[in-house]
Amino acid sequence: MTGSHRVSKQTVFTLGELAALLDVELRGDPSIEVDGLATLKSAGAGKVSFLSNSRYVSQLVDTQASAVILEEAFADNCAATKLISKSPYVTYAKASQLFAPSPAINPGVHPTASIDPSATIEGDVSIGAFVTIAADAHIAKGCVISEGCSIGARSSLGENCRLFANVSIYHDVCIGDRAVLHSSVVIGADGFGFAFDGRQSIKIAQLGGVQIASDVEIGAGSTIDRGALDDTIIGQGVKIDNHVQIAHNCIVGEHSIICGCSAIAGSTTIGRYCTIGGGVGIIGHLTIADKVMISAMSLVSQSIGEAGIYSSGTGLLESKEWKRNIVRFRQLDDMAKRLRELEKLTLGKL
Amino acid sequence: MTGSHRVSKQTVFTLGELAALLDVELRGDPSIEVDGLATLKSAGAGKVSFLSNSRYVSQLVDTQASAVILEEAFADNCAATKLISKSPYVTYAKASQLFAPSPAINPGVHPTASIDPSATIEGDVSIGAFVTIAADAHIAKGCVISEGCSIGARSSLGENCRLFANVSIYHDVCIGDRAVLHSSVVIGADGFGFAFDGRQSIKIAQLGGVQIASDVEIGAGSTIDRGALDDTIIGQGVKIDNHVQIAHNCIVGEHSIICGCSAIAGSTTIGRYCTIGGGVGIIGHLTIADKVMISAMSLVSQSIGEAGIYSSGTGLLESKEWKRNIVRFRQLDDMAKRLRELEKLTLGKL
Amino acid sequence: MTGSHRVSKQTVFTLGELAALLDVELRGDPSIEVDGLATLKSAGAGKVSFLSNSRYVSQLVDTQASAVILEEAFADNCAATKLISKSPYVTYAKASQLFAPSPAINPGVHPTASIDPSATIEGDVSIGAFVTIAADAHIAKGCVISEGCSIGARSSLGENCRLFANVSIYHDVCIGDRAVLHSSVVIGADGFGFAFDGRQSIKIAQLGGVQIASDVEIGAGSTIDRGALDDTIIGQGVKIDNHVQIAHNCIVGEHSIICGCSAIAGSTTIGRYCTIGGGVGIIGHLTIADKVMISAMSLVSQSIGEAGIYSSGTGLLESKEWKRNIVRFRQLDDMAKRLRELEKLTLGKL
Repeated sequence: MTGSHRVSKQTVFTLGELAALLDVELRGDPSIEVDGLATLKSAGAGKVSFLSNSRYVSQLVDTQASAVILEEAFADNCAATKLISKSPYVTYAKASQLFAPSPAINPGVHPTASIDPSATIEGDVSIGAFVTIAADAHIAKGCVISEGCSIGARSSLGENCRLFANVSIYHDVCIGDRAVLHSSVVIGADGFGFAFDGRQSIKIAQLGGVQIASDVEIGAGSTIDRGALDDTIIGQGVKIDNHVQIAHNCIVGEHSIICGCSAIAGSTTIGRYCTIGGGVGIIGHLTIADKVMISAMSLVSQSIGEAGIYSSGTGLLESKEWKRNIVRFRQLDDMAKRLRELEKLTLGKL
Repeated sequence: MTGSHRVSKQTVFTLGELAALLDVELRGDPSIEVDGLATLKSAGAGKVSFLSNSRYVSQLVDTQASAVILEEAFADNCAATKLISKSPYVTYAKASQLFAPSPAINPGVHPTASIDPSATIEGDVSIGAFVTIAADAHIAKGCVISEGCSIGARSSLGENCRLFANVSIYHDVCIGDRAVLHSSVVIGADGFGFAFDGRQSIKIAQLGGVQIASDVEIGAGSTIDRGALDDTIIGQGVKIDNHVQIAHNCIVGEHSIICGCSAIAGSTTIGRYCTIGGGVGIIGHLTIADKVMISAMSLVSQSIGEAGIYSSGTGLLESKEWKRNIVRFRQLDDMAKRLRELEKLTLGKL
Repeated sequence: MTGSHRVSKQTVFTLGELAALLDVELRGDPSIEVDGLATLKSAGAGKVSFLSNSRYVSQLVDTQASAVILEEAFADNCAATKLISKSPYVTYAKASQLFAPSPAINPGVHPTASIDPSATIEGDVSIGAFVTIAADAHIAKGCVISEGCSIGARSSLGENCRLFANVSIYHDVCIGDRAVLHSSVVIGADGFGFAFDGRQSIKIAQLGGVQIASDVEIGAGSTIDRGALDDTIIGQGVKIDNHVQIAHNCIVGEHSIICGCSAIAGSTTIGRYCTIGGGVGIIGHLTIADKVMISAMSLVSQSIGEAGIYSSGTGLLESKEWKRNIVRFRQLDDMAKRLRELEKLTLGKL
């Protein structure tokens, strides 16, 4: 039964309702109605905006927004109605969820879905067209699995997970509650393990699984491989952007953030509350401490024992200038030795 | 109704017909028949070749091609029949389209496709097996949607779009005419936005959509995220290679080219006619001028105000040599200071 | 007919059986039963472990494993029963295959699969739900094609290939025996070829195909484009990790290894037995010799004529220190000239 189609409709709140829901102080008319969010610059009447970066403080004067979420300190700069928050960005995040259109979800199991009789599926789920669920899989209540997804044998989804179209989950993958997996995500493919016998590469069967804790979001096209012997582990609250690769037996600590196109090689452990920038590479068998930040496109080739910000690369130059300097980079060791030599000569004569 | 299967067959032209279709001057026998394209080196009788790079001019003497597309200036070097073009590479591109096998397309809507009754589908389309089209979606005439694709609610495809297998398009994505989307492309997944409340990351609902203008091609596995508040925008004629990531609220100007595995972080604006090399990273909230070229694997961390070629990185070295220099890179600031000191001492004594 | 579901069950061997199957010498009781593999540290009774890295030799004393695969030289350090191997890592790889759970495969063709009548399918295959096989495709015996895969017209799979869910293979792709293709792999999408006519990019139809030899494994989300005129070619035994991009007309030599997130631009030839690290970029039209190793995230912008190890990049620094040095990188050419000047002055006075 596909059931009826829930049409998404515009959400409207009075500012009084909104202030209560967001638990912030309203300074202005509580009866004004608002129906969405917008930037300070583009907001018109009926929209709520926010100031989370002081760079945009000058836009407070001219904004056409019906209300602005901002810190007490900037209240005087703002002509519009104010929603005073200690963390305007967090308040904006919460407001965005209130205004998000209720997704057009077809409740029940689509008649085309191919579900093994041994799979167990709890109530209140939405399972889309052309979904495959293999033997002994378990889908907890409230899950929404969009069309074309594949759930392997003995894998399980916790409550209220959301899988967008064409997600592939292999066997023996265990996912917690409220996971969000975007399209083309692949969880549990074989880790990349081969033993070279002098002539060819012998495949190392990947006997482990993948464990993903609750409140994890994984962006479109990202891949998390199964473990070689033990499991690959993603901690609670971890947020992973698009095109991220996490290799076999990695452990990613709770609440860490991994930006798009980053890759973590096998058996590396990332701490808690880390921020891995976009396009970062981290080689295998390393340990990264808690609260480490890695800037975009850095290569991490050694373990990092202390919280801090780390970077690599040369920075961008106009190509002509870059070519001149790059030649010198190749002479750098030679330059250093010649400098030392000159120092000896010059300082020796003083 | 799946209808009959159109078999692809070899296309044959006389050189006279080909010259007319390509709008170039033929020097030789117009009755010679040709049935395909090949490189100067591998072409045999019945094939057309081309010279677009003067590096290969010496191959003109020995080529077995029945005809060669080339500039007037090289005509004397070529023994074969000539097709004289001011832009041989463009003429080759046009010829390649003439010789491309007519795709084996099953007209009509495959009986397994799952199409919401509120979706509107114009004539002359081909919708493959296991395609899902959600509520209020619109598919214009001439579109070919291959098996396993998913089109979200309220999304629309312009005329003559081509979606290969397993493309995922979320809701509220608007795509212009003649788009080509390769397999595993994902358009409209949530932008990567979270507000950290000191304890965990709060999801920022992504309320914008994606707008893609006409004549855009997007390579296999590439992802374009939906906007946070406003839409993510891809301009007309933009060509995007495989594994490219375009984050929320980016704007990519008309006719720009983005090579494989590049990533553009959120809210960055790329100008028109830019060429972004492979593996490039561009951080968020930047503005890149028109006609900027970025060389492969560069990191762009500041806005670029002027057309030009830009690069970063150290260039490749043998690892032993690289290690010696890399140590000095870490001493570079120290070296610069010591050099300044020596200059003072030495020049002071002159 | 989907047939009966084969349940995976734990494999048990006596050490005597295992030693015979692995062709290694057993030192200990051949009647002990083992049912799996584990690391030296985590292994309990009933598990077999291995020592392939002398760094872990100290763990031999305390391991609870029932048996350890190791070299003769370390036999005396090991209290447990020993399986003596000249190549413990290769022996471990072979053992891992013995203990791999027999996959839960549904034999036959799933009733929902959409198979063109002109496609030929040999015996003993498993074709999953929602698979599409186009006209004149050929599937050899023993292939397992999981749900949601798409096989294009005239494409062929050799014997005993394994395609996981949601793989997309375009037309005219030829794959050898025993290939393993993980989820979201795309083979045969158009190469990225356009000719710029001064105003817009004209598509170059990609008329070649893809040839993949036997014993190739391709990781989740990786893409191999079809050739422009000739085919893209992947040699025997090549192993490709996740998120790898191989552009049109590349040739990858036999038994080379390409780690995750690497990209090879068009018309580049990689030799045999090469190891391309993770996140590497190789620009187009290059030739890389046999047995070349490229370290992670290097950019290869010139051909490499000799076997060896090659690297690029600056190494990782704490950001504060990195910023100081990066400024000097931009002054490097100037520093080199000033150093030369000082040398002239100083050495001239000696």
